[in-house]
Amino acid sequence: MQTNLNNESDLTAEQYQRKMQRRKEVQQERVAKASLEKGLIIVNTGNGKGKTTAALGMVLRSLGHGYKVAIVQFIKGAWEPAEKAVFSLWQDQLVFYAMGEGFTWETQDRERDIEKAQAAWQTALTFIANPDYKLVLLDEVNVALKLGYLQVNDILAGLEQKPADTHVILTGRGAPAELIEQADLVTEMTLIKHPFREQGVKAQPGIEF
Amino acid sequence: MQTNLNNESDLTAEQYQRKMQRRKEVQQERVAKASLEKGLIIVNTGNGKGKTTAALGMVLRSLGHGYKVAIVQFIKGAWEPAEKAVFSLWQDQLVFYAMGEGFTWETQDRERDIEKAQAAWQTALTFIANPDYKLVLLDEVNVALKLGYLQVNDILAGLEQKPADTHVILTGRGAPAELIEQADLVTEMTLIKHPFREQGVKAQPGIEF
Repeated sequence: MQTNLNNESDLTAEQYQRKMQRRKEVQQERVAKASLEKGLIIVNTGNGKGKTTAALGMVLRSLGHGYKVAIVQFIKGAWEPAEKAVFSLWQDQLVFYAMGEGFTWETQDRERDIEKAQAAWQTALTFIANPDYKLVLLDEVNVALKLGYLQVNDILAGLEQKPADTHVILTGRGAPAELIEQADLVTEMTLIKHPFREQGVKAQPGIEF
Repeated sequence: MQTNLNNESDLTAEQYQRKMQRRKEVQQERVAKASLEKGLIIVNTGNGKGKTTAALGMVLRSLGHGYKVAIVQFIKGAWEPAEKAVFSLWQDQLVFYAMGEGFTWETQDRERDIEKAQAAWQTALTFIANPDYKLVLLDEVNVALKLGYLQVNDILAGLEQKPADTHVILTGRGAPAELIEQADLVTEMTLIKHPFREQGVKAQPGIEF
């Protein structure tokens, strides 16, 4: 009989126990080796869903730990009512700022878009430099970079001002290579299947906003 | 002069306006075409970070809309204190259930692991079938499938019991092909860079838990 060691279902109780014991040891070794605490530069990019929502999940965890958090939203003009309703529960711990003026394809005025993005970035910088904030989320900032509203060198210089234990999350498709190079944790969200395109399902509350 | 039409920075004001106008039209066409509302089967898989946190972000949005949400956590034994602290703010809207007993490699008892996973699945089924819940999150259920604690056919049959407008999110690496086939929205989180492995940075509050 051929034994498939990758499938736990086929293992005897003893084999299972040995495998899980080994897994536990590997896990303990990894935890023992990883001893450094460090504020991370985190990038969520790719053309799939989950870049912003994963960042919001981290915001949620940080709030649960009692940390102060700042969120600056680039590109989108305003917070969705549901997000606003949730954020408002943590007025003592959370500040949030939106660039204003709706999606860029609504305005069609490049100069104004650049001004708004630059103003949002200046606001973001004050949070990044402020040690009271443990987590700063720059939502959709990669798109602002891609559209040329912001310059990657300015972002990298700004990130160097962050206190050692502050985490900064940068989201949006098309993260530039220079940013990925400087980041500690980079995840690419890849679209495998999307109902919006494939089934004509519309953006729905709770899913897209 | 060579013009790079992919880089908005090089466009004249008029070209920019035309490009953004076209983008707006494309967006409007897409929204007009997508008219269907549908409860989605959502899968977050891959070996990167953000599978659970993206699901938590969707939970957050749903709570902000006033919807009822159920979370069942497979594999992990208990909720982290920070997540618990946050969830507890929504006792009227949110129920959460953990499989119990710590990570599987802590127990090394296959029979008990299977029993716990099956009990968690039975609990999940009651939420999936209950139309009061608009969103059900089955956290790390793909890992329970991979370990052979649950069978994919049982999961697929269970998903068929869900009311038409209920969303179900299934997370965890190694989602089986049959589940991806039945899902509406599938995202693969791909690890590009991770500080835990590359820099010896340990799991930190707000990031991993």
